[in-house]
Amino acid sequence: MARVFVLSKRPEGLPTLDDFAEATWADEPLHDGEVRVEPLFVSVDPYLRGRMSDARSYVAPFEVGQAITSSAIGRVLETSAPGLRIGDLVRGESPWATSYVANAANLWRLPETSDVRPSAYLGVLGMTGLTAYVGLTLFGGIQPGDEVLVTAGAGAVGSVVGQLARIFGARVVGSAGGAHKVGQLAQLGFNAGIDYHAVDFSEALASSFPAGISLFFDNVGGRQFEAALHRMKDFGRIVSCGAISHYNDTELPPGPRGLEGIVVRRRLKIQGFIVSDHLSLYSEYLRKAMTWVREGQLVSLETTSRGFESLPQAFLSLFRGGNVGKMVVEVGAP
Amino acid sequence: MARVFVLSKRPEGLPTLDDFAEATWADEPLHDGEVRVEPLFVSVDPYLRGRMSDARSYVAPFEVGQAITSSAIGRVLETSAPGLRIGDLVRGESPWATSYVANAANLWRLPETSDVRPSAYLGVLGMTGLTAYVGLTLFGGIQPGDEVLVTAGAGAVGSVVGQLARIFGARVVGSAGGAHKVGQLAQLGFNAGIDYHAVDFSEALASSFPAGISLFFDNVGGRQFEAALHRMKDFGRIVSCGAISHYNDTELPPGPRGLEGIVVRRRLKIQGFIVSDHLSLYSEYLRKAMTWVREGQLVSLETTSRGFESLPQAFLSLFRGGNVGKMVVEVGAP
Repeated sequence: MARVFVLSKRPEGLPTLDDFAEATWADEPLHDGEVRVEPLFVSVDPYLRGRMSDARSYVAPFEVGQAITSSAIGRVLETSAPGLRIGDLVRGESPWATSYVANAANLWRLPETSDVRPSAYLGVLGMTGLTAYVGLTLFGGIQPGDEVLVTAGAGAVGSVVGQLARIFGARVVGSAGGAHKVGQLAQLGFNAGIDYHAVDFSEALASSFPAGISLFFDNVGGRQFEAALHRMKDFGRIVSCGAISHYNDTELPPGPRGLEGIVVRRRLKIQGFIVSDHLSLYSEYLRKAMTWVREGQLVSLETTSRGFESLPQAFLSLFRGGNVGKMVVEVGAP
Repeated sequence: MARVFVLSKRPEGLPTLDDFAEATWADEPLHDGEVRVEPLFVSVDPYLRGRMSDARSYVAPFEVGQAITSSAIGRVLETSAPGLRIGDLVRGESPWATSYVANAANLWRLPETSDVRPSAYLGVLGMTGLTAYVGLTLFGGIQPGDEVLVTAGAGAVGSVVGQLARIFGARVVGSAGGAHKVGQLAQLGFNAGIDYHAVDFSEALASSFPAGISLFFDNVGGRQFEAALHRMKDFGRIVSCGAISHYNDTELPPGPRGLEGIVVRRRLKIQGFIVSDHLSLYSEYLRKAMTWVREGQLVSLETTSRGFESLPQAFLSLFRGGNVGKMVVEVGAP
């Protein structure tokens, strides 16, 4: 018998605990090639909000009454697959459950030698890290000397963006909400942080970027996007990775004022991307990132929520800025 | 003695005739390397509106009391430059004047053999044509099979964009204001035209692009931009060439609603450009365009305004949609 969280109804606007319900699953027998997995660390991510709505997007929506799923690190409890042994640590798309059955072909076994907690393979060494890497390199074309702004700099992706930008020789400023998070930015090696709760964001950008922003990595959208747009240098690149300020909107939100004119005058490039289109770069990234981690240039920043039952709440807290770095739920923790 | 139009004051919002004043210039003697030029065909372009304001941009603003300048084809009246003879046709940045003195190094002599009117070197064989070519190829990455939308399809740049898109094997739909212009689109070989005055633009896009737009070449901005944004295919490219709907705004105009979210979800690229950054591609373009013109695949579409004194009015008419194709003032015409 496994416990599982299902989508009880589609949220309108900001999700609430009522949108989730707990159910139970019988322990199904394994078929050839399958394993039973106990999720240890479950990733909760803002993009899951999109899957809770019934809208065309790049991944299919969750169905009402069905399990919520996200990326997780789990332990193999039982195996009918030749490549996996009991106790192996694996990563895969996992239901929010205390155990589940997976096809071994859909799981990735963690490297045996590791200087990091397994949960890092959800964050700095996982898709979160790859997102930062792909955005900065493939779409941002980052170069030494770039003047980089990253919004939600203390968030899961943003905290890696800032560290990688420094590694690539850029100057980087992050935005974050509140003094605690801005303090985290300094510890991660950001050159500066802007507390967007406390200051006029446009004025702060003018101070932080007297010559303008050459590369803007955006996770937020909305007012921060508009302010940064008007602070871009000629030929600046805007990498659009997310728009968490809009994920709970119930109607089309206002766009950045003056966009079309300024894009032409300053010859800006705005490029949206989704990391799952670029998984072929993961091995290249992981090799580099492991080196940077071992050298101490790249650290894992995580917020841990404890216990299976905390999954929905951990997810909801993302929209209140409740996480510093990657939000991970430690399912088995007391 | 030459007649010249100067900027009498900076316009607020839509320019008026009062923003221009006629003055006279004494005929200065020539220095070595200089020629006296009589402008025959003067290009009037929407981007000149930006130079009439006192704002930082990619070209310096015009000064009040000084001549308005734009690209023109002229005839050499008098020469102190070894490379140019009396009667040569030249293209250069020219004051709105009946004659002026230029350094020969800043002039480009038109090819002697030509199947076209000299004014075509302002339009389809000039910067207008290069703008369409650079936008489609360098930034749009146009491919056979692309589904292309061009706004202001009957305008100077748009009319070339549509023809080039067909030459490159794409399907192309243009927007234009009024039945006459939409009729011109058909004659230029566009696959379809949308009269944005007469229909709901979003609905028309849905009909014209059932599978979505893969390449959107925008000259207009505003509501047409927003509607097209929401009709883009995944991985669509938006080439931002102009935003004539906004050039006379006196405050920051509303942006396209929902921009930041849709850019990510559909992995869109929005790229602004200015042709003057890409003049090195002109000889390549001219060679190809001459061939297409001789083959009858590419035609010059022009609206001619007659007489020196019509210059300001011809410019103002651009913002009322008064031109089909390239707006040229034939300075010496009666």
